[in-house]
Amino acid sequence: MKLAVVGGGSTYTPELIDGFARLRDTLPVEELVLIDPAAERLELVGGLARRILARQGHPATVVTTADLDAGVADADAVLIQLRVGGQAAREQDETWPLECGCVGQETTGAGGLAKALRTVPVVLDIAERVRRAAPDAWIIDFTNPVGIVTRALLQAGHRAVGLCNVAIGFQRKFAALLDVAPEQVHLDHVGLNHLTWERGVRLGGPDGENVLPKLLAEHGDAIAADLHMPRQIVDRLGVVPSYYLRYYYAHDEVVRELRTRPSRAAEVAAMEKQLLEMYGDPALDEKPALLAKRGGAFYSEAAVALASSLLRGTGDVQVVNAYNNGTLPFLPDDAVIEVPAAVDATGAAPLPVPSLEPLYAGLVAHVTAYEDLALEAALRGGRDRVFAALLAHPLIGQYEYAEALTDRLIAHNREHLAWA
Amino acid sequence: MKLAVVGGGSTYTPELIDGFARLRDTLPVEELVLIDPAAERLELVGGLARRILARQGHPATVVTTADLDAGVADADAVLIQLRVGGQAAREQDETWPLECGCVGQETTGAGGLAKALRTVPVVLDIAERVRRAAPDAWIIDFTNPVGIVTRALLQAGHRAVGLCNVAIGFQRKFAALLDVAPEQVHLDHVGLNHLTWERGVRLGGPDGENVLPKLLAEHGDAIAADLHMPRQIVDRLGVVPSYYLRYYYAHDEVVRELRTRPSRAAEVAAMEKQLLEMYGDPALDEKPALLAKRGGAFYSEAAVALASSLLRGTGDVQVVNAYNNGTLPFLPDDAVIEVPAAVDATGAAPLPVPSLEPLYAGLVAHVTAYEDLALEAALRGGRDRVFAALLAHPLIGQYEYAEALTDRLIAHNREHLAWA
Amino acid sequence: MKLAVVGGGSTYTPELIDGFARLRDTLPVEELVLIDPAAERLELVGGLARRILARQGHPATVVTTADLDAGVADADAVLIQLRVGGQAAREQDETWPLECGCVGQETTGAGGLAKALRTVPVVLDIAERVRRAAPDAWIIDFTNPVGIVTRALLQAGHRAVGLCNVAIGFQRKFAALLDVAPEQVHLDHVGLNHLTWERGVRLGGPDGENVLPKLLAEHGDAIAADLHMPRQIVDRLGVVPSYYLRYYYAHDEVVRELRTRPSRAAEVAAMEKQLLEMYGDPALDEKPALLAKRGGAFYSEAAVALASSLLRGTGDVQVVNAYNNGTLPFLPDDAVIEVPAAVDATGAAPLPVPSLEPLYAGLVAHVTAYEDLALEAALRGGRDRVFAALLAHPLIGQYEYAEALTDRLIAHNREHLAWA
Amino acid sequence: MKLAVVGGGSTYTPELIDGFARLRDTLPVEELVLIDPAAERLELVGGLARRILARQGHPATVVTTADLDAGVADADAVLIQLRVGGQAAREQDETWPLECGCVGQETTGAGGLAKALRTVPVVLDIAERVRRAAPDAWIIDFTNPVGIVTRALLQAGHRAVGLCNVAIGFQRKFAALLDVAPEQVHLDHVGLNHLTWERGVRLGGPDGENVLPKLLAEHGDAIAADLHMPRQIVDRLGVVPSYYLRYYYAHDEVVRELRTRPSRAAEVAAMEKQLLEMYGDPALDEKPALLAKRGGAFYSEAAVALASSLLRGTGDVQVVNAYNNGTLPFLPDDAVIEVPAAVDATGAAPLPVPSLEPLYAGLVAHVTAYEDLALEAALRGGRDRVFAALLAHPLIGQYEYAEALTDRLIAHNREHLAWA
Ligand SMILES: [Mn+2]
Ligand SMILES: [Mn+2]
Ligand SMILES: [Mn+2]
Ligand SMILES: [Mn+2]
Repeated sequence: MKLAVVGGGSTYTPELIDGFARLRDTLPVEELVLIDPAAERLELVGGLARRILARQGHPATVVTTADLDAGVADADAVLIQLRVGGQAAREQDETWPLECGCVGQETTGAGGLAKALRTVPVVLDIAERVRRAAPDAWIIDFTNPVGIVTRALLQAGHRAVGLCNVAIGFQRKFAALLDVAPEQVHLDHVGLNHLTWERGVRLGGPDGENVLPKLLAEHGDAIAADLHMPRQIVDRLGVVPSYYLRYYYAHDEVVRELRTRPSRAAEVAAMEKQLLEMYGDPALDEKPALLAKRGGAFYSEAAVALASSLLRGTGDVQVVNAYNNGTLPFLPDDAVIEVPAAVDATGAAPLPVPSLEPLYAGLVAHVTAYEDLALEAALRGGRDRVFAALLAHPLIGQYEYAEALTDRLIAHNREHLAWA
Repeated sequence: MKLAVVGGGSTYTPELIDGFARLRDTLPVEELVLIDPAAERLELVGGLARRILARQGHPATVVTTADLDAGVADADAVLIQLRVGGQAAREQDETWPLECGCVGQETTGAGGLAKALRTVPVVLDIAERVRRAAPDAWIIDFTNPVGIVTRALLQAGHRAVGLCNVAIGFQRKFAALLDVAPEQVHLDHVGLNHLTWERGVRLGGPDGENVLPKLLAEHGDAIAADLHMPRQIVDRLGVVPSYYLRYYYAHDEVVRELRTRPSRAAEVAAMEKQLLEMYGDPALDEKPALLAKRGGAFYSEAAVALASSLLRGTGDVQVVNAYNNGTLPFLPDDAVIEVPAAVDATGAAPLPVPSLEPLYAGLVAHVTAYEDLALEAALRGGRDRVFAALLAHPLIGQYEYAEALTDRLIAHNREHLAWA
Repeated sequence: MKLAVVGGGSTYTPELIDGFARLRDTLPVEELVLIDPAAERLELVGGLARRILARQGHPATVVTTADLDAGVADADAVLIQLRVGGQAAREQDETWPLECGCVGQETTGAGGLAKALRTVPVVLDIAERVRRAAPDAWIIDFTNPVGIVTRALLQAGHRAVGLCNVAIGFQRKFAALLDVAPEQVHLDHVGLNHLTWERGVRLGGPDGENVLPKLLAEHGDAIAADLHMPRQIVDRLGVVPSYYLRYYYAHDEVVRELRTRPSRAAEVAAMEKQLLEMYGDPALDEKPALLAKRGGAFYSEAAVALASSLLRGTGDVQVVNAYNNGTLPFLPDDAVIEVPAAVDATGAAPLPVPSLEPLYAGLVAHVTAYEDLALEAALRGGRDRVFAALLAHPLIGQYEYAEALTDRLIAHNREHLAWA
Repeated sequence: MKLAVVGGGSTYTPELIDGFARLRDTLPVEELVLIDPAAERLELVGGLARRILARQGHPATVVTTADLDAGVADADAVLIQLRVGGQAAREQDETWPLECGCVGQETTGAGGLAKALRTVPVVLDIAERVRRAAPDAWIIDFTNPVGIVTRALLQAGHRAVGLCNVAIGFQRKFAALLDVAPEQVHLDHVGLNHLTWERGVRLGGPDGENVLPKLLAEHGDAIAADLHMPRQIVDRLGVVPSYYLRYYYAHDEVVRELRTRPSRAAEVAAMEKQLLEMYGDPALDEKPALLAKRGGAFYSEAAVALASSLLRGTGDVQVVNAYNNGTLPFLPDDAVIEVPAAVDATGAAPLPVPSLEPLYAGLVAHVTAYEDLALEAALRGGRDRVFAALLAHPLIGQYEYAEALTDRLIAHNREHLAWA
């Protein structure tokens, strides 16, 4: 089995490699291609990747290359984890929206739109080249904003599934609190990427007993603390929102915090510098502890499981981003939602979900409309389309801000936008 | 034909009477019952009503009474135009939300929820008594928030239609700008009550030529000025939003204005005092010019037309509030929407509308979810339901504000809320 | 020795009585007159006062009366602790400024100006009557805003000293942390009432060793927590600001809190109701524990000490509000400042203080200018003077808010403002 | 007479040259040295300078050089008009404060502090070199923030006067409205640089009739419109604030505007590019009309008049920035204020001014304290001093913002701050 990782020079890659090594029984990788235009960084990461596999006795070969077409040729699966413009662009995304009092975040709000505009054309180009060089390959997209990017891929007819680590993170967290094995925990996870709620936590299987009320009663404080939300809000809802919901439920509080803190991008950049120095140490042959602070926990587990199910056609249930196809009847069929889906060799098919309560459905419908316009803007460009997407976003919605943010988005991303 | 007006002591009533007088060919009213618990005010208004009809040679008798059951008995139609708590409650609705930085408005935002909570039980009680005393009567609801109140009436099985003057106002405005008769102007009006857009302005009939682009090109400045929005936003949208959209598209600007202006309720209260003094003048036998400033222009035209179509089964098209029934496929069938509808003796049936663009659909879906929860709170009461409705409102949406507004809403409306 | 307490029906009075009882050696009160127009409340408070004194074997007689002139006749000292408009007015003061995004507080900001406007004329009238009935009496003013009220009294030529419990509170707090007797702690306290900083904490006397650096090093967290400020700010300043400085240093944070909390006035009103019920219990003969939560800790100690020094001419040093007289050279001589002063039978004379650092002096000068204009507005009335005072306040300063707050202040206080 | 202009490559210089040419009778310049490190720009500007003088038949020679010491040698006066970091730094100054909701402006607020920190060391170094190369030269400082820079120069013992065009701009404006010659108009101008009010407008001389009330009555609308303030505020004050007061009196409104507009720096940068292209045209021999839009009107008139009075010892009255020396008794003697002063060969001596009303004095004292701390931070560096200056600024004053702004200021100016 051959796997290609586009953006393989990411400092995050050792996490992924460690997963491949640990989970070799689930996913027997024979060849691993790390593709990245940043040659120096790729070499550091590739070297560590080889040492990690070697230490664990994993037989896979690791190839590093800047040549995308060669790298993906005949791959069984292609993982896309790139960042157009790098941490510098992220730093921008998280800063200029604050000038207008809007949240700066790399998936939500005006920053997320900027990322979508930069990223969608690049990912579509890569996917097109994958289609030519490896027509049967599955594309697993980690690249944010996952919802919009996955929709772009599916609309262009690619064999693609979108993946986020929010659901697996909750699964592991709840399993620990319940003191059961992670595989025992099934989530009634519903919504859009980064706009999800856990409506039930079931033991043993998708129809198992719902222990969410018990979890909240016994561990409500810990769960709320993880979300940086007050216990009270979790109790009122009776469900567990993803911590991205904080950008909605506590928007002004988050803006205030962002205004008075160093940016997350700056933190990540500092950490990446430190990680790359470590990776250069030929004695290092495991993922360093620091990597845990970089975010992205359990991505490798989720990716291995997803790739395995797609390539081996297991038909098991995983939380992924896929076409709605009537699952949430108030959304278009071609909206991309994030729910448990049966995954086999034909792809991911969302399982039915109970009717979504208005308190969540209203926001989901609103954000879906934004994502529709965001994708339009990413595919077709133009100031008016950017403005429309921003005006459609529930966290913006005012024309004065939409105008000002449009100007700033374009000014800060001109080099990455072909039409600007 | 017998008409009853619940809340007939309103200073607005002479506008309605003037319409009945002018439009006697459309709606041949024989008996007009003004029902109101405020005896003194009712007498002033009733006296003027009689003088207006007399001056115009209209034969209808005017009855004034505080007895609802007697007043509505055997009526053909009942118009409901009441205000629970009066202008004092409105003043409150428009003030305390500002403490939390939220818009104070009697239909939108937290103020609108307060009004819904006070009003729905009162209107449902009235409708129940109408059902007993005049089982075949049509209920025409002017009482705000019209969307929520109409939904409450329809869900309880009443023969009811909701009416607002936004659409007829645009019709008259556009007719004047185009220099054509109002009946020549047909609007592609779509959305929810107080959340609507004119997507087309057609001449001659619902399928006539769309002159909206021409209207905007020639009169864009005047249209935008009426909405208190910049010309630019109207041009960008290419449609004409109702001026209530300003509470969304320019929320923070409106809050700033409200903070630095006397309240609309205070203005209306001053005007009402002055009007009542005028009404007491036995020489006055027409509606005074001042009444035009009170708001509510063309309500009488709209009400006469609607009553006529319902009672005479004309089947013509009017913009009303009615069940969605699939018209906007992304909303529940039992949501109440505001669109052109064919009105006959069986009620109002929305005409098909073209697919709603995401820029509008997202907001409509979000507000519909709020209205669903607002109606739940109005019908069933309880702090948690109030909180949920506020959290679901796109202009609120943050838990800190939703908590604070819930407390304030209940504190300021305790005497009007049976469950509080 | 005869003491009169104007506003003696306050629920706070038992605290004062308890102090008189405990500190009888310092201040041998023979007759205590509680003056209050609220007869019922005065009776409850007076009864408890008598029982507290009786239990402690104190020989003073307690007289209760609504007759101010009779009550103060021949008094040695008159304590003024009234609240024009009661807790209801305070509730207003703390609410309507929030509509404009400004802090609502009973001494600071627009709420404090409202209180000054209501209070100054009432206190001046009382003082005038004291001058006639007890020409040699000292007036001790607790009534907020103490700085402005004291300046009004001094400008009118009254024998008056203003008193606040911030300094004595710090003295007791620091003494506890240092494990020494309170009298051992001398504060380098400087500023205006409710705008003060402790620049030094000296042991043994005004020239004793400054242990503030040690206090901050060892107890910085506890001290900062008391102020509801982060430790960091206290460390940066190297001095201890009064917790009222939080309205300046963390204005927007406070506004956010006030928007999402029940008002302090509502809390106090609930507590007062509960206290009065307790006071009616004939078995109660000591101040109840609940009283400690009402605020005003150590007022009785401060008042006893001040009255004793004024009446017995001890010449010792106490922190009081008195004419500046060159102490802070950048302020007018007739500004009222709050600093350690030598108190004897001629009054309170501020001790010299080291030059005030610009970081504090700028704010002190700015607030003094506001207080000057606030006093003008209180004495002479008129919308323009109210506007000028609000525009001069460092927490307001913008004309849009000053206009809006002026309107609201007048609308909410019309019944208490002779000129409005 | 020899004049040197430090920063002579500024696109603004032709304005200055045009003034020297027009006003040759007042100031007979023989040699004019333009000093600038930007060689290419300096050549364009120098060429135009020569053509302007030639066209007007002015005999002065124009020297262009990057060598400061040579350029200023034996100069009679040195004009300093530099911008450390150029328009790019200004762009930054006007942007990052907005992230914290604070005004971004190159003299006021956090942006102004950044400029002071960058500029003071550079100007002091230049002045030191002037002292060596031309010990008798007068330094005329146009460089912002003029108040702080002038104070730095005076404290270091330099022969310096600070100059701003606000006063001369009002003089010309009022003269036009009154239809009199500019020299007939004398202003009761008072405050600090960019924090001034015109308290009187006198005809014929400093003791002439005050026509300000008449001006406001007849031209209030035009005057207010120039200030971008409502007429109402000017009428309430009865004095004319400088338009920089808008950053105080309408802070939040300005922030909102800045958030929704392109930056002034971006506008200026575009204009400068266009101007430099024009300057390269050998046929151009007068200042282009576009220059009028760049700001800085009448600076040449003010500079010529000031240089003339200093060098010829005329003793006439001009509005300048000089040591307070008791003029405003509530400020330190070594504060720098901006008032009418008698200017002769010994420098500028402020004339007495009537007592400053508290409404203005409070703000002046507060800003003076900030300027004191800003200068400390500029001279001595260090994060704590930057924080203290920001906390002391009346437009900031909150520790959360002061912290966040300190971090941003240092991050954006590190290359210009020796200590950072
Ligand atoms: Mn994710
Ligand atoms: Mn309506
Ligand atoms: Mn106090
Ligand atoms: Mn200037």
